Formats: sequence, structure tokens, C-alpha cells
Amino acid sequence: MSNKLKVLAFSGSLRKNSFNSGLVRAVKELKPENMEIDIFDINDITMYSDDLKDGGFPDIVKLFAEKITSADGILIATPEYNYSIPGVLKNAIDWVSRISPQPFNEKPTAVMGASPGMLGTVRAQMHLRQIAIFVNMIVMNKPEVFVNFAREKFDSESNLTDEKTKEIIRKFLIAFSSWIEKLK
Amino acid sequence: MSNKLKVLAFSGSLRKNSFNSGLVRAVKELKPENMEIDIFDINDITMYSDDLKDGGFPDIVKLFAEKITSADGILIATPEYNYSIPGVLKNAIDWVSRISPQPFNEKPTAVMGASPGMLGTVRAQMHLRQIAIFVNMIVMNKPEVFVNFAREKFDSESNLTDEKTKEIIRKFLIAFSSWIEKLK
Repeated sequence: MSNKLKVLAFSGSLRKNSFNSGLVRAVKELKPENMEIDIFDINDITMYSDDLKDGGFPDIVKLFAEKITSADGILIATPEYNYSIPGVLKNAIDWVSRISPQPFNEKPTAVMGASPGMLGTVRAQMHLRQIAIFVNMIVMNKPEVFVNFAREKFDSESNLTDEKTKEIIRKFLIAFSSWIEKLK
Repeated sequence: MSNKLKVLAFSGSLRKNSFNSGLVRAVKELKPENMEIDIFDINDITMYSDDLKDGGFPDIVKLFAEKITSADGILIATPEYNYSIPGVLKNAIDWVSRISPQPFNEKPTAVMGASPGMLGTVRAQMHLRQIAIFVNMIVMNKPEVFVNFAREKFDSESNLTDEKTKEIIRKFLIAFSSWIEKLK
């Protein structure tokens, strides 16, 4: 058994060339030695309804929940759509929130985001932090990561290329590693 | 041509026996004389992704957008999931927000919600009002409708039965009718 910190990372965008999926890939490269990153793709999670749930949770939701439960920490990279998180990301959280025992409960969590505009997803991150209160993820306050003007910081395949941003993310991940250790 | 105010109403819950779908049905019964209500079902709207969008908007999204565009006002009944609106409702808004000209722009809008708990969706409604700022729905401030303790106010088929709540909704719809007229 590895005694590295297991972090489950996912992006709130389904776009193939998403900046936020690029951020999650960058995390794999920039993580500290004591951390390992497992990337989960929320693409195939269907629309939530109580009726569907009452017929049994879909396999993809069960798999997602198991991965959350067994992770030491959760890292979410969210785009901002209409001043909030994408419906797609909220839907994935809505599904998991209905599972008992609730997988997000007390899970150390870090939030980041990238956007083409000036504000770098700050409004979406604030909504996500409020949603996190209910499911009781324990979200790290600082440092915050707002990757703004993303078109200048990623290449055409949405790989992060900006060195200054890489350094910010390195520090963010070191802080997150301490956050996870503190909450153990 | 009818010169009644055309209101497009939709519920943010996909559940068959949803309190919020019940609210939307109640609106049909409680509306003032000068208003007609068209109910839209967001059930079949698929998950948003830019890649999917770039291949063309799904027919259901186009139909939803046309109905929004031709309506005089929009009425949304939202459940509260995890201190926010359901991912399903946010996803429907995300799709429409990508259409140009943007259908929600300057549309008079009213927001309501029902929940089994004490707070009656207030947190979800606050998130929805913030999201509405970006798509520029013009949301009526007052009166607000928070249908709390919904299990006591709806029958087993989620039809609204509580007379006091019905009276609140009658007044809410009269105010909404004035709001639409004022913004014409």
C-alpha cells in the first residue's frame, strides 16, 4: 500500500478541450511527492431525478461515490456558467449527495477554476463553496486559484503552459496536502 | 389572437410527484383572468457540453428557447438541492443561455419554490436570482413565495391543497401580471 495522499480530481466541464480539464491534467504534473491524483470523468452521469434514484443508483454514480469515499481529498476544477457552476457539475454532486453514508461528508476539498474572462470563476467558486456546506465537504479557504484570461495560459489542446500559473498551482497543492493531513 | 399575458412555467424537478411540478399545476388554476400559462417539461434536456452544442442545439432546447422567446413572462418553481438549484434546472438554463439572441434577455421572471423543510427553498432562490443576473431575466423582487413544510400542503399526488398557500399564490400571480405589464 502506498501511503501517499489519494486525491480524486474532476472537472466541471464536459468539453473535450476544456480549460478546467486541462487544469486537472496539470495537477497530475504539478502535485507534490506525497500526493497521487486520480482523475474522474463526470461525462456519463445522467440527469438526476428521485424516480430514477428510487429504481437504484446508476453504476457510474456508484463508481464515482466509491472513489470519493476512498479518497483522502477531493479537488474540483469548475468553469463558470451564468455566474454559477455548470448544471452538469451540480447534477453530479446532487446524485452523490443522495447516497448514504454521504461520500462527501467531512472530505477535505480544494476548489479551483479557469475562465477566458477577467474574474477566473470567482462567482462559480463562491456558489460551489455554499453547496459544499450542505454536503459537508471541508473546503480549504486559502490559497484560492482563479485562472483568468485562460486563452493566454493554455495551448490549443488546453494544456496549461503558463509558468506563473504552474507555480501558483504547485503552492496550492502543497497547501492542500497540509489541509488533508491536518484533517486526518 | 388572445391578448392575454403568455407565461411559460417550468419546474426544476424531474420527479413525477414533485411538489414544484405541483406548484406549477396550481398556477394554472390560480392565475388571474388576464394570464395564460404554458407548462414546459425540462425532463428531456440532455447534459450541456460545448462540443455537443457545436454540433447543433438539440431540438428540445430549440423548442424550449422558442417558447421562452415568445412568452411575455417566465415562471420558475425550483426545489432546493444542496443549498442551490438542481443541476437539472441549471443545465436547462445553461443550454438556453448559449443561444443568440439570448431568449431570457430582459424577460420578466417570477421565482417560487416548495420544500419539505422549514425554509422553503430560500437558498436555491437566491442562487437562481444571481444566475438570472447574467442571462438578464428581470426577476420580480416581491412578493416572494417560499412554500415550506410541503408535505402538509400537498396531497399524495402532489396537488396543492392548502388554502392559505393558494391565496398567497393568487396574489403573487397578480403582482407578476403587473410586473410583466410594467416592463412591456
